[in-house]
Amino acid sequence: MKASIVGALGAVIAAACVSAVPSPVDPFDLGSASHALYPRMSAGQSGDGSNNDKSKCPSSNGTAVSGYQYAPYSEPVRPQIHFSPTVNFMNDPNGLVYSNGTWHLFYQYNPTQNVAGNQHWGHAISTDLYHWENLPIAIAPEKEGEGIFSGNAVIDFENTSGFFNESTPKDQRIVAFYTLNTATSQTQHVAYSSDGVTFTKYAPAVVERNQTQFRDPKVFWDNKSSRWIMALALSQEFGIVFYASSNMKDWSEVSRFQSYGILGYQYECPDLFQVPVEGGPDDGKMMYVLAISINPGAPIGGSFVQYWVGDWDGTNFTPRDQAVRTMDFSKDFYAFSSWSNSPGNKAYAIAWANNWEYSQVVPTSPFRSIQSLPRELTLKYYRTTPQFGDLILNNRPVNLSAISSKTLYSKKSAQGSKNNQTVALNGKGAFDIQATFKLPANTNITYNTIGSFEIFAGDGKQSVKTGIQMGEPTFAFIDRRKAGSSFADSNPFFTDKTSGIIRYQANYTDDQYVLGPLPTSAYLDQSKQDRYISLQAVVDRSVIEVFVNDGELAGTSVFYFDNDQIPAKAQVSVGDNKLELVDLEVKALQSIWKTCQH
Amino acid sequence: MKASIVGALGAVIAAACVSAVPSPVDPFDLGSASHALYPRMSAGQSGDGSNNDKSKCPSSNGTAVSGYQYAPYSEPVRPQIHFSPTVNFMNDPNGLVYSNGTWHLFYQYNPTQNVAGNQHWGHAISTDLYHWENLPIAIAPEKEGEGIFSGNAVIDFENTSGFFNESTPKDQRIVAFYTLNTATSQTQHVAYSSDGVTFTKYAPAVVERNQTQFRDPKVFWDNKSSRWIMALALSQEFGIVFYASSNMKDWSEVSRFQSYGILGYQYECPDLFQVPVEGGPDDGKMMYVLAISINPGAPIGGSFVQYWVGDWDGTNFTPRDQAVRTMDFSKDFYAFSSWSNSPGNKAYAIAWANNWEYSQVVPTSPFRSIQSLPRELTLKYYRTTPQFGDLILNNRPVNLSAISSKTLYSKKSAQGSKNNQTVALNGKGAFDIQATFKLPANTNITYNTIGSFEIFAGDGKQSVKTGIQMGEPTFAFIDRRKAGSSFADSNPFFTDKTSGIIRYQANYTDDQYVLGPLPTSAYLDQSKQDRYISLQAVVDRSVIEVFVNDGELAGTSVFYFDNDQIPAKAQVSVGDNKLELVDLEVKALQSIWKTCQH
Repeated sequence: MKASIVGALGAVIAAACVSAVPSPVDPFDLGSASHALYPRMSAGQSGDGSNNDKSKCPSSNGTAVSGYQYAPYSEPVRPQIHFSPTVNFMNDPNGLVYSNGTWHLFYQYNPTQNVAGNQHWGHAISTDLYHWENLPIAIAPEKEGEGIFSGNAVIDFENTSGFFNESTPKDQRIVAFYTLNTATSQTQHVAYSSDGVTFTKYAPAVVERNQTQFRDPKVFWDNKSSRWIMALALSQEFGIVFYASSNMKDWSEVSRFQSYGILGYQYECPDLFQVPVEGGPDDGKMMYVLAISINPGAPIGGSFVQYWVGDWDGTNFTPRDQAVRTMDFSKDFYAFSSWSNSPGNKAYAIAWANNWEYSQVVPTSPFRSIQSLPRELTLKYYRTTPQFGDLILNNRPVNLSAISSKTLYSKKSAQGSKNNQTVALNGKGAFDIQATFKLPANTNITYNTIGSFEIFAGDGKQSVKTGIQMGEPTFAFIDRRKAGSSFADSNPFFTDKTSGIIRYQANYTDDQYVLGPLPTSAYLDQSKQDRYISLQAVVDRSVIEVFVNDGELAGTSVFYFDNDQIPAKAQVSVGDNKLELVDLEVKALQSIWKTCQH
Repeated sequence: MKASIVGALGAVIAAACVSAVPSPVDPFDLGSASHALYPRMSAGQSGDGSNNDKSKCPSSNGTAVSGYQYAPYSEPVRPQIHFSPTVNFMNDPNGLVYSNGTWHLFYQYNPTQNVAGNQHWGHAISTDLYHWENLPIAIAPEKEGEGIFSGNAVIDFENTSGFFNESTPKDQRIVAFYTLNTATSQTQHVAYSSDGVTFTKYAPAVVERNQTQFRDPKVFWDNKSSRWIMALALSQEFGIVFYASSNMKDWSEVSRFQSYGILGYQYECPDLFQVPVEGGPDDGKMMYVLAISINPGAPIGGSFVQYWVGDWDGTNFTPRDQAVRTMDFSKDFYAFSSWSNSPGNKAYAIAWANNWEYSQVVPTSPFRSIQSLPRELTLKYYRTTPQFGDLILNNRPVNLSAISSKTLYSKKSAQGSKNNQTVALNGKGAFDIQATFKLPANTNITYNTIGSFEIFAGDGKQSVKTGIQMGEPTFAFIDRRKAGSSFADSNPFFTDKTSGIIRYQANYTDDQYVLGPLPTSAYLDQSKQDRYISLQAVVDRSVIEVFVNDGELAGTSVFYFDNDQIPAKAQVSVGDNKLELVDLEVKALQSIWKTCQH
C-alpha cells in the first residue's frame, strides 16, 4: 500500500512545490541555482524572490496563496533544515507515528493567523525525518471556537478498533487521538486513516470527565497488560491519568501519577515511551521514560520538559526516584513527543523549538515557530557526580549525513594543536560544527578555560555563541546576548544565557553499573587524566541546537538576527589556550526545502 | 549578660568605625555630610573618599588596613542596606541564631582574597536584622589548606553539651556546628561561645563518615523526640542524612531523604525548620519546611534553592508530595538559611545573593558578594491554579521601616488613574518602590499589559527593569539586559532575564483550604472581577529584590552598572494603559553603614 499513499499524495506533491521529497533531479544541486533560497546571498537577483511566480506556489499548509508574504522557505529567519509551516502559527508536534516506511509529523497549527488559536492538526511526512513533504491539514474542528488540540497516533495492527477493513495493510492502520477543546470542556477523541492522508472522525468522545483542563492523549499498546494505555494530563491538577482500553473506544482509569517534579502552572503533553539502554550490561534493553511538559512556570522561565526513568507494570508508572531531570538545558524545547512504532527498538522524538513566554511575538513572518531537529534517544549510564551513577536520557540529532553537503573545514587529530580557527560559513545558513577539545592532565584551569563556537552574522557584529567551560563539573552554555537586539531589547522574557552541567563518562566495569550513590572509593580524579569533550552545534539561520559528548547534554535556543542577517562565519576558540582544539569539522547543511519553480 | 556582650564588643566597636549600631547621634543625618558615602554624588569632594583617614579605619572583617581599596561601604557597586564584608570574598550565611536580643550572622569568608578559598566564619550582629555591626572572625581553621565550611548554630539552653557553666545565661549558650574541610575529608565539628564573640572549638569531630562530600550541618532541638537533630548533605550522593544526639557530641544516623527534586551536581545547605501558617483555619500553626540548595545544575543555571513542605515525626521528614518548589524565581539567591531561636514563633531567613556561575568574577571590589535582605517567612494558602490548592512559602522583607528615610513619592488610591510616573531617586542608591496595579474586570489584555518599574542609572541609559505581565497566569520578571554591558558582555553565565508565575489569591472559605486538586467547580474566573497586583522592588545600588503580592513570589538579581553609576530615576509604567496604577510609593532607604570619621 505504499503505492496507494504515493498515489494519494500525487496531487499534493504536484501542488506543493515547496516539497522536498528526494527526486532523480538532485534538488540540492547548488550549481543550478536558478532559484535563490536566500536572494540576498546571490548577486544579481532581486531580494523579493521574484524568480518565483508566487501565483503558482500554493501553500501546502492549506492556506490560500495570498497568505504568502515572501518566497516560501527563503526568509532570512527561516531555518533550512528544521521543519516549519509555510505560513502561520505552529506549536506542538502531534500524532507522531511511523507507518509503512513513512514518518508522520502532525502539528498544532493555526491556518489563518500567525499566532496561536483556531487549532488544527497540520501534517507532513518524511522518509528520513529531515526532508518533509507538506500535506493538507489532517484534522480540523467542525465549529468555530473549537480546537483540535494535541495528541498522538498509533498503528492499530490488529484492528482492535474495528475502524479498518482487512484490505488495509496492518501497518497503515493509523489511529489518532486528540483533545477537542471547546469553551466548556476538553474531551478526548479519535480519528483514523487508511491512506495516511485523510482522517475520519469517530464521533463520540472516548474519554471525558467534565473538565476544562484535561488533554493531550498519548496512547500505546502495552504488551504487559495486552491492552491500549492512554496517558492524559489533568493539567492544572498536576496529575497524569492513565486509562486502559481493549478497543480504543471504551476507556477506564487505571492509575495516576500525581504532583511530581516542577509543577509550574500546567502539565502538558505526557509521553510514556520505551527507550533502549545504550552500552553496558543492559545494552539494548528497553526501559520506560515518562516526559511531562510544563508551561508556564519552568524555573528557566515559561516552558520546559522534565522526565522520569522508571518501570511500567501494566497499570502503574513507578519512577526510579523522586528526582526530576530535564531534557534540554536551554529555553526553546517544549511539547516533546516520541514517534510510535519506530522500527528496530529505537526511540525517536521531536519537540517544538520555542517557548510560550514569547513564541507569539517572535519576529518571524509569515510563519511562527519550528520543530527541533529529530532526535534519537537512548539511556546511557553516567557518573552524574563522582559518587552517583544514573541513567540519563541521551539525545542526539538523527544522522545529519542525509542533509550534509560540503565540508567547509576539517581537521582531525591535529597533534598538540592549540590554535583557534575561523571558518567562513558559505552556504544557505545551516551548518553542522563539531569539535573535540582536549584538556591535558594536570592542567590548572581558569574561568577562561573555555572552548567555544561563536557564529557571526554577515555584518560581523551580531553573533550567537556556545561553548564549554572546564571545571568540576564542566558547564555547557548558549549565549544569544549579541544575536540581535531589536526583539531582545523589547521582550522581558527572551533570556539570553542558558547553561547545563556535563556528566562524567562512566566506566561500566569500574562502576559496576550502580544507579544511585556509589562508594566513595569509586572517585575518578579527572584532573589527573587527559579529558576530551566533544561539542556539536547545529546552526540553522535562527536556531542553534547544541549537543555535548554525543548527546549527553543538549540545548536548544532560537535567536533573531536583526537586518535580515544569516550565519556567515564561525570562530572556534580555546579561551586561555589551556584547552586544545584537537578535531574540528564544519559542514554546510543542505536546505530540506525546494523552492517553487514552474 | 547583654552587658558583657557589649563590653566584649567595646573594643571592636571603637576600632570598627564602619559599624552602624544606632547611636544617640543620628548616623543617618544627611545634613552632616562631612563624609560622603558616595563621593561622586557630592560636588566639591574628591572621588577617592579622602575625607576618611583610612589609616584609622581598620577592617572589622579582620583584615589589615592595607586591604582597603576605597572608603569602606562607599563604592558605587556597594549595596547600602544589604550586608556585605568590608573587603574580600563572602558566600553562604552560617550559624544564624538569635541570642539574648541579638541576631547573629556568621558567613563563609575568605579574609585574604576576593575569591572563594581559605574559608573562615566571619561574624556580624544586629538588633534589627538591618544594622549590622562587624565583629572579628569567629571561627578560623588551624592549618593552611583547611577550611571552616558552612553550618549553623543553636542555643543550648539546658547545657546538654556540658560546654557551659551555670553562670552563662541560658539564652547566651551558643553552639555552632560547621564542616571542617580538608584535602581528604569533610567532617562535622562543634564550637561554642558564652559571650557571643569568641568561640572555643571542641576538638573531636562529632560526625564523620569517610567522605569528601559531606557537609553543612543544620541542628535543631526536636521537641517530638526530645533530642537534637542534625541535617547534613551527602552532597554528591544527593542525600540529606539526619542524625540524632542527646549531648551534641555523640550522633547516630536516624533517617535519610534521598534523591528528591532537582539534583544538579551537589546538594548543599539543608535547612529543616518550622514556619508559621499565615491566615486561614491553621493560622499560626507551625509546619516543617526542608530547603536544599543546589549547585551547580539548577535549571536556571548554576545555583538555586528548592524546598518541600511536610511533616517531621521525630525521625523522618515526609514531604507532602514529590513536587519541587523554588524559593526565588531569579538567579541570585543561594545557600538559604533560617535563624534558630527566632522569638515569637516567627521564621526569619537570609540567603547569599549571588550565583556560583559568576560570583568569583563579578565586578565588585574590594569585596565580593552580599547577603539578601532578611526575609520573614510564612506558609500561605494559594490557588496555584484554579484547580489546585497549595501552601506556598511566602517571603517578604523584614519590615523596612527601620531603614526608611524620605518618602520621594506617594500616591495612594488615586481613583481611575492610568498614568505613568517618573520619580527622581534622590539618595544614596537604595530605594523601596511599591505599587499596586489594577486590571479592571472584563479587560482584554495584550502582551503589553505590563506594569513595570524601570530603574535608570544616572546616565539615563543603563537600567534594570522589573514588572508583571497580566495573563492566565500572570508573570513577574526581572530584566537586567541593559544594566551594564562590560561584565554581561564578557560572561557567558550572567543571564539577563528571569521570570516566575504569580498564584491566585485564595479564598479560604470558598476553597475549604484543600491542598492538592480542587473540584473544577471551584474555578475562579479572574477576568470577570477587578484584579489587583502589588509589586515591590527594593533596589540597592547593585541588587534588586522583587516581591509580588506581599511575598507570594520573590526574585533576586544582582546587576552591575558600568561607569560607577548608581540608581537615579524610577520610571513606573503601565504598558498599554489597560492596567491602572492605583498606588505608588517610593522611599529612599538609609545606608546601614556609618562611614569612617575620626
